[in-house]
Amino acid sequence: MIKFELIHTDKKTGARAGILHTSRGKVETPAFMPVGTQGTVKTITPEELKGMGCQMILSNAYHLALRPGAELISKAGGLHKFMHWDKPILTDSGGYQVFSLANLRKVEEEGVQFRSHIDGELHSFTPESVIKLQEDYLGSDIMMPLDECADYPCSHSVALSAMERTYKWLKRSVKARKGETSGLFAIIQGSVYKDLRKQCIDMMIELDVDGYALGGLSVGEEKSATYEIVSHCCRYLPKDKTRYLMGVGKPEDLVESVEQGIDIFDCSLPTREGRTGKSFISSGEITIRNSKFKEDFGPLDPECDCYVCKNYTRSYLRHLLNTKEILAPRLNSFHNLYFYISLMKKMRESIIKDSFLDFKEEFMRKYAQSLIEGGL
Amino acid sequence: MIKFELIHTDKKTGARAGILHTSRGKVETPAFMPVGTQGTVKTITPEELKGMGCQMILSNAYHLALRPGAELISKAGGLHKFMHWDKPILTDSGGYQVFSLANLRKVEEEGVQFRSHIDGELHSFTPESVIKLQEDYLGSDIMMPLDECADYPCSHSVALSAMERTYKWLKRSVKARKGETSGLFAIIQGSVYKDLRKQCIDMMIELDVDGYALGGLSVGEEKSATYEIVSHCCRYLPKDKTRYLMGVGKPEDLVESVEQGIDIFDCSLPTREGRTGKSFISSGEITIRNSKFKEDFGPLDPECDCYVCKNYTRSYLRHLLNTKEILAPRLNSFHNLYFYISLMKKMRESIIKDSFLDFKEEFMRKYAQSLIEGGL
Repeated sequence: MIKFELIHTDKKTGARAGILHTSRGKVETPAFMPVGTQGTVKTITPEELKGMGCQMILSNAYHLALRPGAELISKAGGLHKFMHWDKPILTDSGGYQVFSLANLRKVEEEGVQFRSHIDGELHSFTPESVIKLQEDYLGSDIMMPLDECADYPCSHSVALSAMERTYKWLKRSVKARKGETSGLFAIIQGSVYKDLRKQCIDMMIELDVDGYALGGLSVGEEKSATYEIVSHCCRYLPKDKTRYLMGVGKPEDLVESVEQGIDIFDCSLPTREGRTGKSFISSGEITIRNSKFKEDFGPLDPECDCYVCKNYTRSYLRHLLNTKEILAPRLNSFHNLYFYISLMKKMRESIIKDSFLDFKEEFMRKYAQSLIEGGL
Repeated sequence: MIKFELIHTDKKTGARAGILHTSRGKVETPAFMPVGTQGTVKTITPEELKGMGCQMILSNAYHLALRPGAELISKAGGLHKFMHWDKPILTDSGGYQVFSLANLRKVEEEGVQFRSHIDGELHSFTPESVIKLQEDYLGSDIMMPLDECADYPCSHSVALSAMERTYKWLKRSVKARKGETSGLFAIIQGSVYKDLRKQCIDMMIELDVDGYALGGLSVGEEKSATYEIVSHCCRYLPKDKTRYLMGVGKPEDLVESVEQGIDIFDCSLPTREGRTGKSFISSGEITIRNSKFKEDFGPLDPECDCYVCKNYTRSYLRHLLNTKEILAPRLNSFHNLYFYISLMKKMRESIIKDSFLDFKEEFMRKYAQSLIEGGL
């Protein structure tokens, strides 16, 4: 049973503070979901995630269906038990992965056929099978329906056709779900075409879903285009349901999108960049491998109070990266996730106090420092 | 200031319970030191090590001198501060690494010249420089002197010559140290030749050192030969000083060697094997990647109460390994280290109760299960 409770909307912007109620507990929004594609948020334990204030994670039905397989997870007692995480999990349907990772796909009205990117084995997904996978086998708290992701860039007619199919598949998904324990979100498609996005929303709000996701963004388009579509969609989305911007983004993108009225986000950047040694800190992005940090015995982010910033130096983190020590991706991922989650908390507080714009200005001023200084 | 306090010797064996006092606190022996070659115990944080009862770690002067360099660590405030570990650190001199890893070495009476195994840069170590490195730059709690490690197998005369040089270098090391804060251990050499081992001990106990290490073992010789030399040396080593068996070994080796009177150990096996998915559990060695664990939803070691065994299944650990997730080496290393450290604690308790042989019999009976069953 999914319910979105709108607590407060910032007086000067569209930014919202809310609570997403799920059968596995509350998620205070705006919220960031760390990505646990394969049933683990890379390098980090569930206890550490909880300790940094993480309320919900994202996992991926496509990846889990391939490895270790849906039946195994079902036998293990569901995804939560399998991966030792008892808070909410939103699972992506795998639509995006089928279109971006898999080979030899065949898209038909019925569904999509594809070959695994791992071993080439033939698989097929239908809207119904993907709901069954998430509802019965994984036990997701929020399911995403199968959608058709048009390439970017694409013509208006290609975007229209993908949007229409996504809508038809959503109708079948709504019909396919058995109960209300696992919530179901709609995915708004339509590429960068505003009329299609509006049309998609108009059609989908007629269906019985628990929230709305913006799909097909951050796929190569200009940032200004992303922001415009986000702003455009937020104008038409119902206020009493959760709004989820899929796969976005950098800290500044989260701030911009929260301003428009987005509630939840997922993105692999904090862990992916963390593994290669890029960190997000109060003054912007920092590449810790840079030789100028060799003898920098200060913390990664002087304004951060996370475990890493309290106990380690830039010099040490750089040494770990240079010597290819696994502690490096672990500590960097930890800090980055903490930074993202803390950012969401601070935004929420400022929304409740009607001071989101002040927060944004202060954050952006500091965060742009790395750009002004020509990169940290 | 290093002092070894012998608490109790098992009535039926040579097994000893003691306390190694260092300026950074006590180490209850027998004890196992996790290996933190490059200033990090691979994948694990200092807090986790303390949580599992780790009292002292080993690091390596050779590796640290190459990366990040001794001066940098000195500027950081010493190795403890650099790596965020405030308990004792024993540093290996790097003698063994020079002989096993480095290229183009030239061994002379003065010291050893070698090329870095990383970038080919020319370096030289002398007994004096290696003491300075550990005492002044790293701030080790226990230093190991530069020694000459003969290849295995080697002739009696080659072993003799390496042993004699090791002795001469130890004399220079004793002279070179400035204070008593960093303890200094002797390294007994002599390959598998009992007369040389005895001769080496006889000469070295005349010098002012804080403990004795057995070097040049576990380098390819038969296990029975290792055990024989350990037993032989323990007969002649003074009872009031710490005995350290370098680079050994598997759980059964620790039990056999404690029985002979060894106090401390280091070995990279728990973390190295942990990274590839081999685990040490109560019933022996287990390769978690094995397909028979695919749907095994029991804990890694049913008799273990560590974080990993309490919260994860064999099936999940196997999935993490198969998908190359970093959480796999992390969790496996955690369990393996916990297993080793717990084993030492249990041995200590049994020694104090004069029941070491009962403990050994029980441990070995269970531990051999994997062999009897043809491998877990």
